[in-house]
Amino acid sequence: MRALVTGADGFVGKHLSRYLRDQGSDVSRAGRGPEELDIDIVLELNDSRSVEAALAQARPDVVFHLAAQTFLPAAAERPLETYETNILGTARLLAAITPPTRFIFVSSNQVYGYGSSSGGALTEDAPLAPVEPYAASKAAAEHLCMAAQRTFGIDCVIARAFNHIGPGQDQRFAIPSFARQLAQIAAGTQTPRLEVGNLEAERDFLDVRDVVRAYGLLAERGVTGQAYNVCSGIPRKIKDLLRMLILQARVPVEVREDPARMRPSDIPRFYGDNAKLRALGWEPQIAIEQSLREVYASWQAAIGRPSRLEAR
Amino acid sequence: MRALVTGADGFVGKHLSRYLRDQGSDVSRAGRGPEELDIDIVLELNDSRSVEAALAQARPDVVFHLAAQTFLPAAAERPLETYETNILGTARLLAAITPPTRFIFVSSNQVYGYGSSSGGALTEDAPLAPVEPYAASKAAAEHLCMAAQRTFGIDCVIARAFNHIGPGQDQRFAIPSFARQLAQIAAGTQTPRLEVGNLEAERDFLDVRDVVRAYGLLAERGVTGQAYNVCSGIPRKIKDLLRMLILQARVPVEVREDPARMRPSDIPRFYGDNAKLRALGWEPQIAIEQSLREVYASWQAAIGRPSRLEAR
Repeated sequence: MRALVTGADGFVGKHLSRYLRDQGSDVSRAGRGPEELDIDIVLELNDSRSVEAALAQARPDVVFHLAAQTFLPAAAERPLETYETNILGTARLLAAITPPTRFIFVSSNQVYGYGSSSGGALTEDAPLAPVEPYAASKAAAEHLCMAAQRTFGIDCVIARAFNHIGPGQDQRFAIPSFARQLAQIAAGTQTPRLEVGNLEAERDFLDVRDVVRAYGLLAERGVTGQAYNVCSGIPRKIKDLLRMLILQARVPVEVREDPARMRPSDIPRFYGDNAKLRALGWEPQIAIEQSLREVYASWQAAIGRPSRLEAR
Repeated sequence: MRALVTGADGFVGKHLSRYLRDQGSDVSRAGRGPEELDIDIVLELNDSRSVEAALAQARPDVVFHLAAQTFLPAAAERPLETYETNILGTARLLAAITPPTRFIFVSSNQVYGYGSSSGGALTEDAPLAPVEPYAASKAAAEHLCMAAQRTFGIDCVIARAFNHIGPGQDQRFAIPSFARQLAQIAAGTQTPRLEVGNLEAERDFLDVRDVVRAYGLLAERGVTGQAYNVCSGIPRKIKDLLRMLILQARVPVEVREDPARMRPSDIPRFYGDNAKLRALGWEPQIAIEQSLREVYASWQAAIGRPSRLEAR
């Protein structure tokens, strides 16, 4: 399989590119550059010519479109820029693709909005009711994919990714932020206090390596025009994940809930039903404990000092 | 009320601007220009500065956002341009508006896609499942409106307009195309033959003057964050409307169904439920027969000759 991965220099993009190469695919990694950053193609989504050139260079059987503004607060701060990249960028790819190239669009659980207020697992037929600009950009781009599929016969499959964890994630996200701070506390470079948001919220976390296996499977077996939840199917309290990380760090730490870190759109429980993806032959392989262990270990390594207890 | 109408030089925009002025509103008519075309402000939706300048000049209590690529085949031919105008153009307005300005977004029944395949009247809670690029652009822009409402407190109301009829509509649409051709046949300047698309399709037509009264009412009484169908609630066969027009023209005419004019996405029956709008105190006032009479008369006047029978 010849694959073009956009956002190949991002957290998931790196894992996906590596996974696809390990599987024997011929992978073109596209990113915003500069080129020395482990990418093969410099791709500027805001420029149709750059998009066309990337496709001409990669000649892909499958495009995995991951490139996007993915950080919710940044998207809310700069909605126009987010819409330009996330919506029009997707439109430019869709316009430049020709059949039979398959387009895997990486969307988000956020498209469901408050859909989970009933408290149950979200299935793919839940209505799209995005709340924030990031979510709106993904829901909008999903509509563009479906229009490309229905009107122009572009072979599109949508992956609705829930929360990811794994080594290499940007520390602006909650779990890597906790892990980094705990590693610093363990190394003695931060006072033993964590400022946290809503710890009672329940979210659906999946190891990034299980996520990219799902994307690879969708390229092979996903049904055109369909959306698939990519999730663990298990709601987990952020508090419980933090507790597991603290057990890793083996340091006493004071946890302070900071109202400023609670987002107004926070809903208590948000998790997906992954039966549709499982029916293609996928299941999660990496336990949450292992993911957290590796996330913590990666921050420990990055900070470069052993934890106090390990140093004894 | 100070109102800014975008797309004021379009079919509905002209009717809306006139209606609002008749109601005593201070109306700024924005269009793409040139300025001599009965507009007050030249607005280029693809340029944030133009959008900001229009709002600064109009200082509106309400923005009626009608400007868009509205012709489905043109949108399917140039999807990128359509998305740029219809989605990003809306985003630029939303980004430039500040509370308490109300934003009336004119969307489309097309956002429901094949939703009506059950054959019943579509209510506003039917899922968004757009099929064509035009429809996708409107569904996408709706999500942006809702994100602006939920995240930034922009007072948005969505009008989902079904088919319009009335004097002044572009002849690329079916009913004015029929009326123009019949007027030409009656005037003896066209052979008495009509090439038509799917005449068995049932659609929901509302006179444009009932449409603009609905928009005015939504500005006053619409509930923020809500979408309202603007429709007659009555499915009508295109064939029956054509028959009424032929009765107006009083000429014998051969009607030929042309498969090339049938759109693949044509569905047999597509009509809305207008109970939500009626609950605000609106109801249609112009009978379909009157609309068609006036549409035909306007083409007769445009073509400049009396029909054969009237000339006797």
